[in-house]
Amino acid sequence: MTLQEMGLRAKEAARVLRTADAGLKNRALQAMADRLRTNTDPILAANAADLEAARQNGMRDALIDRLTLTTDRLVGMANGLLDVAALPDPIGEIIEGYVRPNGMRIQKTRVPLGVIGMIYEARPNVTSDAAGIALKAGNAVILRGGKEALHTNLAVATALRQGLSDVGLPEDAVQLIDKTDRETVREMMRLNEYIDVLIPRGGAGLIRTVVENATVPVIQTGVGNCHVYVDKDADIEMAASVVVNAKASRPSVCNAAETLLVHKAIAESALPVIAKALDKANVRLRCCERSLSLCRDYAACEVADNSDWETEYGDYIMAVKIVDSLDDAIDHIAQYSTHHSEAIITDSHSAAEAFTAAVDSAAVYVNASTRFTDGGEFGMGAEIGISTQKLHARGPMGLRELTSVKYIVFGNGQVR
Amino acid sequence: MTLQEMGLRAKEAARVLRTADAGLKNRALQAMADRLRTNTDPILAANAADLEAARQNGMRDALIDRLTLTTDRLVGMANGLLDVAALPDPIGEIIEGYVRPNGMRIQKTRVPLGVIGMIYEARPNVTSDAAGIALKAGNAVILRGGKEALHTNLAVATALRQGLSDVGLPEDAVQLIDKTDRETVREMMRLNEYIDVLIPRGGAGLIRTVVENATVPVIQTGVGNCHVYVDKDADIEMAASVVVNAKASRPSVCNAAETLLVHKAIAESALPVIAKALDKANVRLRCCERSLSLCRDYAACEVADNSDWETEYGDYIMAVKIVDSLDDAIDHIAQYSTHHSEAIITDSHSAAEAFTAAVDSAAVYVNASTRFTDGGEFGMGAEIGISTQKLHARGPMGLRELTSVKYIVFGNGQVR
Repeated sequence: MTLQEMGLRAKEAARVLRTADAGLKNRALQAMADRLRTNTDPILAANAADLEAARQNGMRDALIDRLTLTTDRLVGMANGLLDVAALPDPIGEIIEGYVRPNGMRIQKTRVPLGVIGMIYEARPNVTSDAAGIALKAGNAVILRGGKEALHTNLAVATALRQGLSDVGLPEDAVQLIDKTDRETVREMMRLNEYIDVLIPRGGAGLIRTVVENATVPVIQTGVGNCHVYVDKDADIEMAASVVVNAKASRPSVCNAAETLLVHKAIAESALPVIAKALDKANVRLRCCERSLSLCRDYAACEVADNSDWETEYGDYIMAVKIVDSLDDAIDHIAQYSTHHSEAIITDSHSAAEAFTAAVDSAAVYVNASTRFTDGGEFGMGAEIGISTQKLHARGPMGLRELTSVKYIVFGNGQVR
Repeated sequence: MTLQEMGLRAKEAARVLRTADAGLKNRALQAMADRLRTNTDPILAANAADLEAARQNGMRDALIDRLTLTTDRLVGMANGLLDVAALPDPIGEIIEGYVRPNGMRIQKTRVPLGVIGMIYEARPNVTSDAAGIALKAGNAVILRGGKEALHTNLAVATALRQGLSDVGLPEDAVQLIDKTDRETVREMMRLNEYIDVLIPRGGAGLIRTVVENATVPVIQTGVGNCHVYVDKDADIEMAASVVVNAKASRPSVCNAAETLLVHKAIAESALPVIAKALDKANVRLRCCERSLSLCRDYAACEVADNSDWETEYGDYIMAVKIVDSLDDAIDHIAQYSTHHSEAIITDSHSAAEAFTAAVDSAAVYVNASTRFTDGGEFGMGAEIGISTQKLHARGPMGLRELTSVKYIVFGNGQVR
């Protein structure tokens, strides 16, 4: 099938979903979960084929792990769909309603976006997660997963489509592109007539490619060069605890911190404590010249160069810099941050106010770990990614972030 | 100055504006209005030069009129800035605030977008309108107006920058690109490092060019192929009044209606009345075969071809089509609409419900004219354009649509 045909089918499916009520969408999610479970054998067989090819191509162990499905992981994917079914339906909410002086009643109403294009990499669970969240918000999806996971994704998509069909919804509400060449994905990025928004999920390279080539509106997700700033009025034990959590609780994810900034007035007392705690968590440090002498007795240290300030390590490595003032910390963040998540540790009210006002990131924390930037942790129930752009959605994206609005206006013959 | 330098300056100015309070921004708007008035002579002299060149290049009268500034129009521009000063500041609004089970307080707070790029055509008033609205919402602007208006725009921008400087705000919050070649505007569309959003205002060609070439996120504005559907249960007098208003009160604007759809059951009684009223307003008709015989005794009619259904005439011309049912009307709109504004005239509750649920446009009216899709008419106070896309903003864009959000999270040492 051509992409044009897929687009047309998605648009038709989106027309049906637009007026589908929550009950029907929830029954579809339950049927999709059932079909994932009853299709365990063909899905795991397809996954085995993908894994065999991946091993022959010398894929790294970490990526092999991401690609691997097991019965447990499939049950997890099915449960994810049931969790989404349990969330309130965002569609139809009247966000604002008011009467104009001429008597017209205006209702700003939440509606689906329409057709969502997802471009992602190796994890096959994204196929069902994205389809489920998009469906609950009334959207059709066109999915383009990594080529390493093609057979797995096709088997998962087949199960999801069966579920839609089981409850009488169009199975084209979930479509997976079965071509993995570059030309096809480039064509997808320019399918403005049919796709309302593209969401790339993956590494910085994938996201850059989509931003540079798409004419369809894009929501950028997930590149995080996050900072923790320890202010002169910080509680040092709290600082050590938050820094270790922000860096080392899961270094591979986008909300993990990469750079520690410390006010010069507290550096001498705080850095040895923090360095010791980071060392205990197996974190190696890349220190500015001033911080090096305060850290090197307590942790494995190297001298940082300028590239360290802009690196998202995704690993047990943290850059450390002493700053002369709160303003210097804010300036450093303005220069190097990817505007994902930043934290200040302080007991000073004015410092907290200044930091939260001046730092221009999706999430800004006072005395808490950057690791909380997450749809689940924010109470959204489900998440399709974390937006690092300012347009449409910023921060964790849940169901509401996959919606648009429509003004419905009731009159009795008003003219202008 | 290079675009890179302008971008850097805009970003620096945006950092200052981000924490500027409403009082300071309002004083800036007042000073900008003052400077427009005290710079009347140089602005009108620059405008005279642009007009002279335009006439020599054989510009059409309608465009000459758009380009022309007078003392009155300048006063109008200054008053527009004062109107924006009088509006409430959208920045700092806490849109949502809640406490998580671990005690973290999350505040979803309205913040400026940052740097807005405006690309527009001949009207020089857009220069001050856009700068004023952007500033009130805490944003810096980089403006690129039509080359026919370059001298006028430069003179206006100079006055606006003086006003910013008068109150101690960075004058680089308002910058106008003085190069009008295509290469520069293409570079502007790819200035992702410095520009947060591009808003093109102008004809369909301009908007297409921006959508196809920009890597900076774009908000599409203003292309309107709008429909009025007269249902079988319509009040015929109301239908005639709304249709005439929607078509003929200002045919050149995007919220004017282009196609009239009429249910077959009411066509025989309604079309003569509506055609007569349209004829009185100097509107010529392009009729489907069935409607032709019902209209041609009352108005100037031609036979429509398929291209008529997709034409935004911007003129005293209206396409007319008889449909067999409400569903056919909805299907026609789904096929041809640009998703701007559509209206149904009906006294049937179920028809109104079905139409407003199924029609996927920014504004959907029951018994009122499409001409109301406008920031002022919707009570927004000021407008920077009408978005016809679904991402970020849809429908009239006022101050709030030029903002983003930031999550500010207060903790006392929480880790994950």
